[in-house]
Amino acid sequence: MIASARIRGVLAPVVTPFKADLAPDSKRFIAHCKWLLSQNCGLAVFGTNSEANSLSMEERAMLLDELVAAGVDPSRMMPGTGCCSIMEAVKLTKQAVGNGCAGVLMLPPFYYKDVTEEGLYRYFSEVVQRVGDARLRIYLYHIPPVAVVGITTGLVERLLAAYPNAIAGMKDSSGDWNNTKTFLDAFAVRAAGPAPTTRAARTFDVFVGSDSFLLANMRNGGVGTISATANVNPAAIHKLYVACTEKSKFENRESNLEDPPSRKATARLDLEGLQAKLNVVRQVFSSRKFSSMIAALKQAIAIYAHDPAWRTVRPPLVELTTEQANTLASELKAIAFTMPGL
Amino acid sequence: MIASARIRGVLAPVVTPFKADLAPDSKRFIAHCKWLLSQNCGLAVFGTNSEANSLSMEERAMLLDELVAAGVDPSRMMPGTGCCSIMEAVKLTKQAVGNGCAGVLMLPPFYYKDVTEEGLYRYFSEVVQRVGDARLRIYLYHIPPVAVVGITTGLVERLLAAYPNAIAGMKDSSGDWNNTKTFLDAFAVRAAGPAPTTRAARTFDVFVGSDSFLLANMRNGGVGTISATANVNPAAIHKLYVACTEKSKFENRESNLEDPPSRKATARLDLEGLQAKLNVVRQVFSSRKFSSMIAALKQAIAIYAHDPAWRTVRPPLVELTTEQANTLASELKAIAFTMPGL
Repeated sequence: MIASARIRGVLAPVVTPFKADLAPDSKRFIAHCKWLLSQNCGLAVFGTNSEANSLSMEERAMLLDELVAAGVDPSRMMPGTGCCSIMEAVKLTKQAVGNGCAGVLMLPPFYYKDVTEEGLYRYFSEVVQRVGDARLRIYLYHIPPVAVVGITTGLVERLLAAYPNAIAGMKDSSGDWNNTKTFLDAFAVRAAGPAPTTRAARTFDVFVGSDSFLLANMRNGGVGTISATANVNPAAIHKLYVACTEKSKFENRESNLEDPPSRKATARLDLEGLQAKLNVVRQVFSSRKFSSMIAALKQAIAIYAHDPAWRTVRPPLVELTTEQANTLASELKAIAFTMPGL
Repeated sequence: MIASARIRGVLAPVVTPFKADLAPDSKRFIAHCKWLLSQNCGLAVFGTNSEANSLSMEERAMLLDELVAAGVDPSRMMPGTGCCSIMEAVKLTKQAVGNGCAGVLMLPPFYYKDVTEEGLYRYFSEVVQRVGDARLRIYLYHIPPVAVVGITTGLVERLLAAYPNAIAGMKDSSGDWNNTKTFLDAFAVRAAGPAPTTRAARTFDVFVGSDSFLLANMRNGGVGTISATANVNPAAIHKLYVACTEKSKFENRESNLEDPPSRKATARLDLEGLQAKLNVVRQVFSSRKFSSMIAALKQAIAIYAHDPAWRTVRPPLVELTTEQANTLASELKAIAFTMPGL
């Protein structure tokens, strides 16, 4: 990877394992991160699915330091650092940048509602200025079903104009493709091809918050997905991502490619088929019959790693009941789901 | 005040002054708290109107220590200590209890939405057990317009059954009188009269989150209000509170009163008139033409204390524009509003 290239592709909002006393379990956390990397999956640690907002500042700081100390590559990390308090967001972001993380995924301050675009602009502006580091790459995190406070095109426009280097992109977890398309059309239109390097600072990289939109995102100028199910199904999601980029390279017949795929190889790529397979897995995990997708993901890891400790979640979430766990197990078995190498 | 009596009456969610660099201004904060106490107003520091969720953990801890060190009476304090993280809520709550605060006002964990009653029960249960102090008095904070996650009667029932001493009451900021009435009817029905002492542990004290419901609350078994406008209009709100308790004492003709008010005195109490006066003030501050009520409250203090520094708010909030400030000033002048002794 070229040093200055942006992080792209498939990332997992890494689920955070807890011990019986609810303390973060760094040993299992590091092991899961290493497995995800082995599946070509980047690490959006401290995301919504990481229960990061149930972690204290100290716990997040400690886990990030432990990951780096364990040799996990920070250039493959995009930690969540958005907090309601500017001061806390700055502290976590500084730590991430100082550790060489590829970027940070930043929630808007989510307690106060009905805030103005001006207020949100000032929040992010304060963070960029107080971090004061040219290496900072912020990915704005739009997840209105949870944070309620969202990211608007007007906000992105103002932030990009003021901080074209620091504002690197966004994750759209609205679950609304029309919204993603609006941001893609407004900010991500550019020539297809490999991730730009020197011009990278001027592009806006859109990740979709669900792998179910990965194909649509890649066809419309997006750069990948940061998806909950990447915690359990990373290889298949990465396969679609690679197929999309290969197809795009071929169709654009770019002359500057070092490794142009043959017509024969790309013609065989059934993108819709790969997307459909991902959707089948996601459908199991996102079923309303489970208390939360987070609990279901952890339950699946517990099953496939033969490690019941993985079931634990922090309140206000609750782990799956035995009955729900059995249902999940049989549904995953029915679709021949596996987690190779876990 | 009897040592074990519960805190009741009028409390202000104390607005937090900031310096130009957005650091908390403890000098102005302490002065405002002392002024509020001089107006018979208790201190619900670190509430929604305090911009507490825009403060870091360290800033809240520091401000509380500074208040106590400045001689502000902790038995008149009910700091907000609810956080998304159990660990942080425990830390702040321990500090408050250790400092002798009358109680803590606790938001539910507000990031994850659609959580179950079981999950919220586990959250509060963990906090009570981890704080592990018989002096702990929790007031559950129901503010669905902001936190979205709310407090249900089912949750209160379970918590009261498990922790009858620690679960002391609630603040209802739903803005929906029917909701307050539901909680009053379910948990607050008891003989009128002075605050119970030995039996105090078994009662559930309902504060309304707006002084506009104070009269209704007092007539239906409530114990007071924790209201934003108490920051600027504490004496008038306290006057209604006292009038309600006097009237209640008289009407119940309790034989054990040491100071029964005369029929003549209480007959003159025009409770509706006092409530109507409060509503006029509140209407000015809650007008949608201001960016937020918090900014309007701070602007009013800036005006009446001749101290423009009070205007500052932290992003994502924005201070009033000059035009809005002028409008506020003239509207307050029109209703002959004053802040005596500020």
